[in-house]
Amino acid sequence: MFGVRGLLRALRRCSSAPCPKHAPAARLRVREALEARELPVEDVKVQGWVRSVRSQKEVLFLHINDGSSLESLQVVADPSLKYRDLNFGSAVEVQGKLLKSLHQKQNVELKAENIRVVGPCDTVMFPFKPREKHPLEYIRQFPHLRCRTNTLRSLLRVRSEATAAIHSFFQENGYVHIHTPVITSNDCEGGGELFQIETANKVKEPEGESHFFDVPAFLTVSGQLHLEVMAGAFTQVFTFGPTFRAENSQSRRHLSEFYMVEAEVSFTESLQDIMQVIEDLFKTATSTVLSRCPHEVEFFYKYVAPAQKGRLEQMLKNKFLTLSYTEAVDILKRAPQTFTFKPEWGQDLQTEHEKYLVTHCGDVPVFVINYPYDLKPFYMRDNDDGPQHTVAAVDLLVPGVGELCGGSLREERLHFLQSRLQRLGLSDTYQWYLDLRKFGSIPHGGFGMGFERYLQCILGISNIKDVMPFPRFPHSCLL
Amino acid sequence: MFGVRGLLRALRRCSSAPCPKHAPAARLRVREALEARELPVEDVKVQGWVRSVRSQKEVLFLHINDGSSLESLQVVADPSLKYRDLNFGSAVEVQGKLLKSLHQKQNVELKAENIRVVGPCDTVMFPFKPREKHPLEYIRQFPHLRCRTNTLRSLLRVRSEATAAIHSFFQENGYVHIHTPVITSNDCEGGGELFQIETANKVKEPEGESHFFDVPAFLTVSGQLHLEVMAGAFTQVFTFGPTFRAENSQSRRHLSEFYMVEAEVSFTESLQDIMQVIEDLFKTATSTVLSRCPHEVEFFYKYVAPAQKGRLEQMLKNKFLTLSYTEAVDILKRAPQTFTFKPEWGQDLQTEHEKYLVTHCGDVPVFVINYPYDLKPFYMRDNDDGPQHTVAAVDLLVPGVGELCGGSLREERLHFLQSRLQRLGLSDTYQWYLDLRKFGSIPHGGFGMGFERYLQCILGISNIKDVMPFPRFPHSCLL
Repeated sequence: MFGVRGLLRALRRCSSAPCPKHAPAARLRVREALEARELPVEDVKVQGWVRSVRSQKEVLFLHINDGSSLESLQVVADPSLKYRDLNFGSAVEVQGKLLKSLHQKQNVELKAENIRVVGPCDTVMFPFKPREKHPLEYIRQFPHLRCRTNTLRSLLRVRSEATAAIHSFFQENGYVHIHTPVITSNDCEGGGELFQIETANKVKEPEGESHFFDVPAFLTVSGQLHLEVMAGAFTQVFTFGPTFRAENSQSRRHLSEFYMVEAEVSFTESLQDIMQVIEDLFKTATSTVLSRCPHEVEFFYKYVAPAQKGRLEQMLKNKFLTLSYTEAVDILKRAPQTFTFKPEWGQDLQTEHEKYLVTHCGDVPVFVINYPYDLKPFYMRDNDDGPQHTVAAVDLLVPGVGELCGGSLREERLHFLQSRLQRLGLSDTYQWYLDLRKFGSIPHGGFGMGFERYLQCILGISNIKDVMPFPRFPHSCLL
Repeated sequence: MFGVRGLLRALRRCSSAPCPKHAPAARLRVREALEARELPVEDVKVQGWVRSVRSQKEVLFLHINDGSSLESLQVVADPSLKYRDLNFGSAVEVQGKLLKSLHQKQNVELKAENIRVVGPCDTVMFPFKPREKHPLEYIRQFPHLRCRTNTLRSLLRVRSEATAAIHSFFQENGYVHIHTPVITSNDCEGGGELFQIETANKVKEPEGESHFFDVPAFLTVSGQLHLEVMAGAFTQVFTFGPTFRAENSQSRRHLSEFYMVEAEVSFTESLQDIMQVIEDLFKTATSTVLSRCPHEVEFFYKYVAPAQKGRLEQMLKNKFLTLSYTEAVDILKRAPQTFTFKPEWGQDLQTEHEKYLVTHCGDVPVFVINYPYDLKPFYMRDNDDGPQHTVAAVDLLVPGVGELCGGSLREERLHFLQSRLQRLGLSDTYQWYLDLRKFGSIPHGGFGMGFERYLQCILGISNIKDVMPFPRFPHSCLL
């Protein structure tokens, strides 16, 4: 990504400098410096934060990092350059010569001619210490500083690359990206688990009758219905944005604000098509992430989840399995173990059931399809395998995480939808949704994937709070 | 993007079909069909919505579109294939042979062997009519159907490509993408213009004392402060997400929910660096959009804003101009025209002033820099040109839209920031922000660009409601 192009860019930055006699040093990112191949490079400038200081009698070693790579750049300097402020955590600017390193551990080192402390670090108050492995629970207490640890820095780079990989996957396959709304008047799904919004003044004086939008407004729980609007004009659309749940439960798997990747495909009559998109997305995005941040991913396999590496390789290599809900219930009923919730056709699968199914299938991702009609929302397509017996729904269960994706074919037949909405007393609310079936209705389907759970799955991180830059959950909204 | 690869993909789709004797037709998107070069192609299937039906004595002409391109595919068929349901707006599947067209207007046409109406359209109730140019105000009334018009379809494709182009720009320049939070406890900027959130139950029974997050929580007005957290670990970060204002004003330039592109750059002491990123972003993203959807952009220049094409070319060709705030006020004072708000050093620039400045400079983008200290928020960097005289702030004004971007260097010096926050009585609230200056503080700066205003600017669309898929504004939150 950087390399030669980066060096050239740096030299351009240098050549446009105002002073022709003493051209200033070429500024390099740490990653550019580490990837430099034609050494030595005279007069470069590297800026970053000090990760370690080791002062020996004849030489001073520093490691500096600027977030452009997990690896730090080794700086060697004369001990006379060791100022009082040159500590772990301080921000520095080092000017000198980039050399081939004589040490085995690194290719490159920066021989410092000048070191400037740009911003000192109060090491007594700084919550992180050099060469100490801080537990994730400890790091989590410092939302404004935790990005300075190797763990969070690695996570955030992976998260950034995964975001880009997901966007690329859809773009390269011809999907149109839609910004579905965060604020919605649609209050159907979830009921009590919704966040409602008002102007700040209004919350303080709630006697007033009128709402800012004239109607009650909520934070979205899913962009699906809005994507379905778009599926009436484009054959493939996707959205990737924040969604919300006001669920009052503390869990390793839930946040009040989290990201969802959702896609909708028109002119499809087959749930297999949707499952194929899910599998392609998972495998393509994951391969991209593994190739773009190998060190960051390795970091997690080394320090956080040693078993995850092999597990992920299995997931990528093999075709995902498929079970019908009915088969799944049969497997659970025959299971030698006792469940807290007895498996029964017509009942939701519990986390313990999902775990058992994934293990039973050999620790690989499993699609469970064709759920009971009565368990699922109104928009899922009736399978016509009996009077309102099952719908064309799919959940993807993955090792360690459980439910990663959920999707379905949508009911595109006006009369089926009309009668179901009528039974639910929702015909008026969803008049606009029925309209979509009156003007060129098309068989279509889609799915949603929880982005944080996806990150948990590929990195083996057990608590969802550790994969979100600023996690929000009951009793906690820091910064 | 499609072309040969698309055809190959389609043939793969075909070859994996279950029936070897009668292989099903290869499914092509409209765009793939239009870009096919090796003609004829036997036995293809195209699905989409009917844009026009013209029945002649000996031949039936259809145009069908599936959202993959602005242009529709012409279908020629025997008049016996004209079913009753085959109308403007209906969804169809056409099977036949792709041929070189004999007409000048198109390269390709589909000779239909079979036409199936997948979803009929109630043309009486359908709000859009064939070959009619519906005003934007009319289209706006149908949020669930308007994506089926050429105008919105074009807009949404441009919006999708612009989103991708902006992501690419930052990614290729080494920026880390950060999902800054939507829900925040940070209530400082804006005061009365904030949306506050509570659980839906809580809003109904507001007597209770406790909040879901224990503290009042709001919808974010900017991700800047959260990006600044990240600027302490990465040298370049960006975010691109929804932001909110509870402003009770109807305007062509404001929405309650809109998208912001925000970036933060560490280790910079120069406002010029920030301005260079803004200019590069604008020019690179716009060139990408123009090359990726030329027809869609042309559509707007043809039907919506004929003058915009030349104006945009000027913007892309020339270096953006720079004026200091002080120079700007001098220009305004010398202006031959009378303003509603008299220009005065120390007063905010009004829309009328911004318009005049842009016109005065020759209808090109203008950076206005170094604003009065007292006009700007606490985090902007004091220029040291007098006792709290000006700060290193920048606004980018563009023709037709006014303020497109706002940015600044941030105050990285602990004691400056401490005394300013103390004067404002905000020291406790922003203890965490002060912390960022205690542990390796770095000179840094950044900016935000309103994404909808950017779209208005490149396409010449005067009302911001027409560039948002689901616009939210006072008294309106449809769907």
